[in-house]
Amino acid sequence: MAKSPETEHPLKAFGWATSDSSGVFSPFKFSRRATGERDVQFKVLYCGVCHSDLHMAKNEWGFTQYPLVPGHEIAGEVTEVGSKVKKVKVGDKVGVGCMVGSCRQCDQCTNDLENYCSKMILTYSAVYTDGTITYGGYSNLMVADEHFIVRWPENFPLDAGAPLLCAGITTYSPLRYFGLDKPGMNIGVVGLGGLGHVAVKFAKAFGTKVTVISTSINKKKEAIEKLGADSFLVSRDPEDMKATAGTLDGILDTVSADHPILPLLSLLKPHGKMVLLGVPNKPIELPAFPLITGRKLIAGSGIGGMKETQEMIDFAAKHNILPDVEIIPIDYINTAMDRLVKSDVKYRFVIDIAKSLKAE
Amino acid sequence: MAKSPETEHPLKAFGWATSDSSGVFSPFKFSRRATGERDVQFKVLYCGVCHSDLHMAKNEWGFTQYPLVPGHEIAGEVTEVGSKVKKVKVGDKVGVGCMVGSCRQCDQCTNDLENYCSKMILTYSAVYTDGTITYGGYSNLMVADEHFIVRWPENFPLDAGAPLLCAGITTYSPLRYFGLDKPGMNIGVVGLGGLGHVAVKFAKAFGTKVTVISTSINKKKEAIEKLGADSFLVSRDPEDMKATAGTLDGILDTVSADHPILPLLSLLKPHGKMVLLGVPNKPIELPAFPLITGRKLIAGSGIGGMKETQEMIDFAAKHNILPDVEIIPIDYINTAMDRLVKSDVKYRFVIDIAKSLKAE
Repeated sequence: MAKSPETEHPLKAFGWATSDSSGVFSPFKFSRRATGERDVQFKVLYCGVCHSDLHMAKNEWGFTQYPLVPGHEIAGEVTEVGSKVKKVKVGDKVGVGCMVGSCRQCDQCTNDLENYCSKMILTYSAVYTDGTITYGGYSNLMVADEHFIVRWPENFPLDAGAPLLCAGITTYSPLRYFGLDKPGMNIGVVGLGGLGHVAVKFAKAFGTKVTVISTSINKKKEAIEKLGADSFLVSRDPEDMKATAGTLDGILDTVSADHPILPLLSLLKPHGKMVLLGVPNKPIELPAFPLITGRKLIAGSGIGGMKETQEMIDFAAKHNILPDVEIIPIDYINTAMDRLVKSDVKYRFVIDIAKSLKAE
Repeated sequence: MAKSPETEHPLKAFGWATSDSSGVFSPFKFSRRATGERDVQFKVLYCGVCHSDLHMAKNEWGFTQYPLVPGHEIAGEVTEVGSKVKKVKVGDKVGVGCMVGSCRQCDQCTNDLENYCSKMILTYSAVYTDGTITYGGYSNLMVADEHFIVRWPENFPLDAGAPLLCAGITTYSPLRYFGLDKPGMNIGVVGLGGLGHVAVKFAKAFGTKVTVISTSINKKKEAIEKLGADSFLVSRDPEDMKATAGTLDGILDTVSADHPILPLLSLLKPHGKMVLLGVPNKPIELPAFPLITGRKLIAGSGIGGMKETQEMIDFAAKHNILPDVEIIPIDYINTAMDRLVKSDVKYRFVIDIAKSLKAE
């Protein structure tokens, strides 16, 4: 008989989990493996609440393994390191993002692109190399291979910084890879949520001019005055759209709701690049003609490799890029999820694990 | 009253035209402008029959101007040059491809990408700078601005080489731009028609390994033995498709018929690039997930700039890359169009204009 989550490993752990697709969270006792020779054990201090956590809690992508302890924007302090660990020492601040393992041998892994390894192991709801299910950061402690540990920059806030481990790298990586990081470029950001507001901050830090593209005018003042966007475009306003046609070098589309792509393509210059970061339920309808006549491209991008994640957080610390967060206690998580459904958060919930998560 | 095609210009010209969407061709008298100071006048020797000619003859894209004289794969010999022409002299062999004008001032034009200029003027069925309609190469003579003239490589066949002016640059340019020209790369070519068979030849010349992807096994022997492809994949064979999954660096999709894109995307490695060269009638259905999980991209590409077109034909001459053609007389054009509808040509018709086109 397989062991239970509470007894399969030697280290006692606790967190909050949901046990079915109702997505309702409650306290949960489980266990973590002992710190292996290349492992880092750390006390979780903060954990961001990503929209993926909500999708996974409700099994909306169909591959959730219950009980589910989500959380992949995890910041904490090292409590133990294995004998061969070189990256960090006890007392260091560290982070773990969306993945905790990969094959380490394939073309992707050897090119620092572990996130595209076909054997990449997600931080939660995935099967680890020892056959047990991974549990995420809505919990008191983590044990992870040092390769998947991010060194936290000195004097960089752990609470507001935690969401960078997913939202940050998800927006930083495509700006870099697709060459949308050149000063003076015109970059569009579709959607102003957890990903979008961080995309604006990175794009501004690269010296680009940023246009926020949204379905309503409501967020204009905040986008420009608070987040520093250069302009704001209402995608439902045909005049506005026409005036902006053919002006953008690239677009990061962070929206997961179904939405038309063709009008957004018209905003791109020739050779412009549109990168999808959200996953709408329905396939996109994409005519070939506008792609061909302007040599435009549409691509996807998912998080980033460990080397680039470290580079991203160091860049964020240097340029003082921090997500705007609302700090919550763990017992607020069900309310937070309800608010997340309504996009009622500016712009990311972060759970204060250390202060609010107590063993029963 | 506007002048007629026969009298609007001083130079008498004749060709074959279609006067409505029946697409039936018959002899047609018209006129060409006098050779301006930057113009090159040349006697048309050969003209390729592109699939676009058929679409345009039947007004399938909705912007045909009748009477229509198609032809944008035009090779000939210079008969007169304007006083300021430097590129060629009388007696030189030259070519004209898909465009005869552009604004020459915009970002695209100043970067040798006239093909993406918003004021680009097509070789036929477009309005030229003097307000008259452009007529293509199914005709005895051409007058074109020297900027849009290609110098023909010495000792390079004009008949078989003519289709390079469209089919050649349409496949060469995306292989270059998207970096799919590195020796050892795995390149897929979807569809083995006018574009596809030239794509195979260029991709081989770049030193890549080429997989031809087709709906039926019929063309396998020819693709491998005659065109030099390394392998052949039947897109309707699930086992074949599964065995090839995740192995291609890039795909050139030359098919204009509606066809599923998602199975083709599965053939790409992470970061793989799929370039659409054909224009299916229906929009493509594109789920975001496979793009995101593999950072794949889907793009379009249309012909190439004049500098690159010259580079392409010089490269073709150096590597002896010639389309496989069937030479026809002009009075065969209606039969040729019927056969083109059925893809019954290996792989391009070329009209022997000099021998077969006679003034009535």
